[in-house]
Amino acid sequence: MTITGDMLIGAQSVRGTESLLQAINPATGETLGPDFGGGGNAEVNRACELAEAAFDTYRATTPQQRAAFLESIASGIEALGDTLIQRAHLESALPIARLQGERGRTANQLRLFASILRDGRWQNATFDSALPERNPPRPDLRMQRIAVGPVVVFGASNFPLAFSVAGGDTASALAAGCPVIVKAHSAHLGTSELVGRVIRKAVADAGLPEGVFSLLVGAGNVVGTALVSHPAVQAVGFTGSRAGGLALLHAANSRPQPIPVYAEMSSINPVFLLPSALAARGEDIGRQLVDSLVMGVGQFCTNPGLVIAIDGSALDGFRQAAVKALADKPAAAMLTPGIHRAYEQGVAQLCALDGIHAIGAGAAGDGPNRARPALFETTAERFLADERMQAEVFGPASTLVVCRDAAEMLALARQLEGQLTATLQADDADHAIAADLLTVLERKVGRVLYNGYPTGVEVSYAMVHGGPFPATSDTRTTSVGASAIDRFLRPVCYQNLPDALLPLALRDGNPLGVWQLRDGKVA
Amino acid sequence: MTITGDMLIGAQSVRGTESLLQAINPATGETLGPDFGGGGNAEVNRACELAEAAFDTYRATTPQQRAAFLESIASGIEALGDTLIQRAHLESALPIARLQGERGRTANQLRLFASILRDGRWQNATFDSALPERNPPRPDLRMQRIAVGPVVVFGASNFPLAFSVAGGDTASALAAGCPVIVKAHSAHLGTSELVGRVIRKAVADAGLPEGVFSLLVGAGNVVGTALVSHPAVQAVGFTGSRAGGLALLHAANSRPQPIPVYAEMSSINPVFLLPSALAARGEDIGRQLVDSLVMGVGQFCTNPGLVIAIDGSALDGFRQAAVKALADKPAAAMLTPGIHRAYEQGVAQLCALDGIHAIGAGAAGDGPNRARPALFETTAERFLADERMQAEVFGPASTLVVCRDAAEMLALARQLEGQLTATLQADDADHAIAADLLTVLERKVGRVLYNGYPTGVEVSYAMVHGGPFPATSDTRTTSVGASAIDRFLRPVCYQNLPDALLPLALRDGNPLGVWQLRDGKVA
Repeated sequence: MTITGDMLIGAQSVRGTESLLQAINPATGETLGPDFGGGGNAEVNRACELAEAAFDTYRATTPQQRAAFLESIASGIEALGDTLIQRAHLESALPIARLQGERGRTANQLRLFASILRDGRWQNATFDSALPERNPPRPDLRMQRIAVGPVVVFGASNFPLAFSVAGGDTASALAAGCPVIVKAHSAHLGTSELVGRVIRKAVADAGLPEGVFSLLVGAGNVVGTALVSHPAVQAVGFTGSRAGGLALLHAANSRPQPIPVYAEMSSINPVFLLPSALAARGEDIGRQLVDSLVMGVGQFCTNPGLVIAIDGSALDGFRQAAVKALADKPAAAMLTPGIHRAYEQGVAQLCALDGIHAIGAGAAGDGPNRARPALFETTAERFLADERMQAEVFGPASTLVVCRDAAEMLALARQLEGQLTATLQADDADHAIAADLLTVLERKVGRVLYNGYPTGVEVSYAMVHGGPFPATSDTRTTSVGASAIDRFLRPVCYQNLPDALLPLALRDGNPLGVWQLRDGKVA
Repeated sequence: MTITGDMLIGAQSVRGTESLLQAINPATGETLGPDFGGGGNAEVNRACELAEAAFDTYRATTPQQRAAFLESIASGIEALGDTLIQRAHLESALPIARLQGERGRTANQLRLFASILRDGRWQNATFDSALPERNPPRPDLRMQRIAVGPVVVFGASNFPLAFSVAGGDTASALAAGCPVIVKAHSAHLGTSELVGRVIRKAVADAGLPEGVFSLLVGAGNVVGTALVSHPAVQAVGFTGSRAGGLALLHAANSRPQPIPVYAEMSSINPVFLLPSALAARGEDIGRQLVDSLVMGVGQFCTNPGLVIAIDGSALDGFRQAAVKALADKPAAAMLTPGIHRAYEQGVAQLCALDGIHAIGAGAAGDGPNRARPALFETTAERFLADERMQAEVFGPASTLVVCRDAAEMLALARQLEGQLTATLQADDADHAIAADLLTVLERKVGRVLYNGYPTGVEVSYAMVHGGPFPATSDTRTTSVGASAIDRFLRPVCYQNLPDALLPLALRDGNPLGVWQLRDGKVA
């Protein structure tokens, strides 16, 4: 499959003329061909109108049809083989093995939503029987969830496959019955086009209207804001910076009809080292934490950017082991020159704050866009006094915050902003402190981990990749895992409709075989 | 039980000193004692701090404990007996029988949420088994939904019991585990205090922290904005005007940490009269529609403010019957002088528009705040050309819109704003048009009715009292029925936690006996 640099607007390949974009190999700084043409308002309008035109037909497909469609996308991505992996590697500097794993996750995500569609519980088909004898009589009431409408998805820089063109947002929105318009991330334009072409072919093969999927390319925020402001668009999925997410949220709230924005933005993922665990295995934790910190050059939303421990001799073992482990970690190329620049600035800003100092660093590295891992240390007192220490530094940097005692650790937990994750390193003797921390942290995060490290997000039923603001803009849901489909559905009730006019999921005899709740009981 | 005019801030009765408020009997214009003292920032802060302090204890109660608590509120409201009904009647001018029915609905709502709590499905307990042999190993993942935090509820003018102090928003938030702060509607201050005292006693009897419930009183929007802006508050329930809902939404979005606002605002609830039904029973429909229109002096969120039909001789029968039925309907006192003033203005503004004219009216009436029912007529062409005709006139006014043909009816449906309900009056021969309309209307409304009238909202599992903007500010949920609890919950995932540290709903052996999803299958 050839990369052309065109946008995919429904069935058409369209050359953008508003701007010129080029993919860059961040490991070398070299430009990668071909040139891409960025779109403007005309292309945004065209993609949105096609999506709107496709919506009623697409949402009327059966869950089984959409499941087969998602599976054909998964197979199509796998069939791209090495072409996709090589291009993604060139565009992201991510290792081949990592990208192969990410491709597997991407296909699994699509297949998970296919199985969710077949299971039918997602539709929440609910029946309240008529009670004609009651005074007043109760009508026959039936409820299902339906797709909200066309959805705009912004590809994320740090998952060129699993959270990009055919990533979690796209998979869950398509599963719900929503047409999707993807704004490609400029960090992996060629990867985006390759995957976009797979989806476009799957749309055509399934006989679906072309507007079910479009892929736009554009410079800066112009295309993104235009997409979020278009009246046809009914929801937005985004993973990226806090500033970017807030800008989309502002645009969505400024519409005549506001729409939900699911923005996953910023998280420093505190790791709490409790005393007994620290004493028993502080050195192991130090080494493992550094491994988690530098994984993927620290470019995970769940990267452990904050480590919190109580002062004492047990902490020394952890600190020494972490510093020693870090020294062996090589500098590595980040995803884009912009991300590398922001990392360098973030590290410099931390260094410049009062009461914080560097205690360790990775090896210096040659070549462009190399991030050198960094470990800082401060006291809880200083940390609590300066909220700038809570700002996310995207990349392999973390701050060790030293508390006087458990009470100060708890006070620090209370002051944290919303996070995607929090982690406890704890042993049995730590349970009392752990229980107190859990009560605080449950309110701050989407996922609590015990004796693990926050990087690594399972795609499953129980996963929550979400959390209170500013981790996300909407704490009621998740962007990873089965519940992600909830974001793109809304309930509709049907009162006394004749069977022939009812949606299939609500008809007598359950022709779709969906999960049903009847008069409050699971049928 | 005596009405004192105090606010109930936790266990304390507090005399507000920021403003003086008086209840008014809208049927006579007379002031009702006692005087109420409105609160300010000090009382808002105190109530919010108490709610925050109560939250962790309250959310840690078992679902069974909260169920018993809700049931004790229901019994307490019933035990108020005639005292409550008489006061509500004086403050609202609503008939005694209506208020008795509304009291029943209020108690039933509380008991429905008690049964939902005992059923345990609301918690969405989800388990993904560890897969230690997989590469990489999968951890043990468990997910539940937890309460979001303190919730602010604004009492609605038009349901002094069922959507006020112990109404649907309060019941669903308390069920979820959220402390509630109610801002009393100034239209029924005494009713609010009576019910508030019942809740306060139930809090004390259950041994719950006092901050689980507070009732504030205040003039204008000051107290409301301060409540929505307070950092402890995590969600808002509101039923009222579009301007009021949008103001709260703006305040919530302007916070450093935005929070969800569930505002139910404005709806004109279109009723479509399809040709065959109109020919067969146009006169019956005319009479029944007028009954629905004037019920409760038209002061229902689901009042049929728009009737859409195709021109022809069949329409004449409907029109004549409706006009004749309307002429017999007496003018009746509205809920407040302000609501009556707004109704008169709304009717006058409709009259002043080009191409719309009055075709019927109810009887004129004596006494203050009387609303005279009104029926207007216009053409689809004029209606589509002037969006002011879509503005809600809260009260017993409706507009008949005459279409040339089914195509114009469909075009009109497409132009409608979001609504709580849409109704089809249709017979078997109308199914083709009905199916086309349903495809459009599903996207516009929360509930579709067939051969009924939109007034009358069942409190049940399948009910959706919601809909796209501006019907509500959040189309993903409902403010009436079992799903209302979803608004005040968020998911949290627990990774590899030891059983002793897990929340009860997620422990091995299922000590709470909740509904469970295990590895994608209902257990």
